[in-house]
Amino acid sequence: MNRDPDCIFCKIVAGEVPSFKLFEDDATLAFMDINPANEGHALVIPKEHATDLYAVSDAVLARTAATAKKVAGALARTLAPDGLNLVQCNGPAAAQSVMHFHVHVLPRVKDDRLAMNWGLKLGDIDAIGRLAERIRVWI
Amino acid sequence: MNRDPDCIFCKIVAGEVPSFKLFEDDATLAFMDINPANEGHALVIPKEHATDLYAVSDAVLARTAATAKKVAGALARTLAPDGLNLVQCNGPAAAQSVMHFHVHVLPRVKDDRLAMNWGLKLGDIDAIGRLAERIRVWI
Repeated sequence: MNRDPDCIFCKIVAGEVPSFKLFEDDATLAFMDINPANEGHALVIPKEHATDLYAVSDAVLARTAATAKKVAGALARTLAPDGLNLVQCNGPAAAQSVMHFHVHVLPRVKDDRLAMNWGLKLGDIDAIGRLAERIRVWI
Repeated sequence: MNRDPDCIFCKIVAGEVPSFKLFEDDATLAFMDINPANEGHALVIPKEHATDLYAVSDAVLARTAATAKKVAGALARTLAPDGLNLVQCNGPAAAQSVMHFHVHVLPRVKDDRLAMNWGLKLGDIDAIGRLAERIRVWI
């Protein structure tokens, strides 16, 4: 499997960097974003390294999308959000912060006025860990 | 194929409402958004009606994602944007405006300060039509 030794997401896949895992299969991994734009913000990545949408294969893209759908369903059941976005970012103007293809699964709150480039702000790590346990029940 | 007779996107699929088509295959359709958040804003939909991410099948989701990737590549070649997002919206807080599953392919401009819910404002229809011709060359 293709891996970039300097990539934080590849390190998470390898278990060298900890994460709050939500789901894992042979091709994909879902885990909590520790810089959540809203409560429940999760990430889905392919295990194989690919920089962005242009670099990922259709097969891996399909697997990533299926896992994102699964996580979205679990988030909907856990938090019953007023809305939910899938967001995928490529390049500096879209504020792609990790150069490993990923999909944000982002619960929305009515009138949250989120910006498309929402910025990185570390969340409450203990609360994120507890929430991950509640979400995993539904996956 | 499942169809909602009151759905504007189902009418576009059936050719009953015009659109600036970018790409079409047996399962999906890509066309220009006439309310563009930025120049080149396109939409990808499955031909079969499904309300949102929760309702779409994994197989149809995979086909839609593959077409979105194809359109993103063509947009990148046509406009060389500073970034590009895929955005998929579910529910009122995420400003889902058409209840037929769709993926926004959204070129970004440096410092465009787009909101996640960017609002609907009709674009210059003639300019959108001309741009569609330039994008289609790359698909």
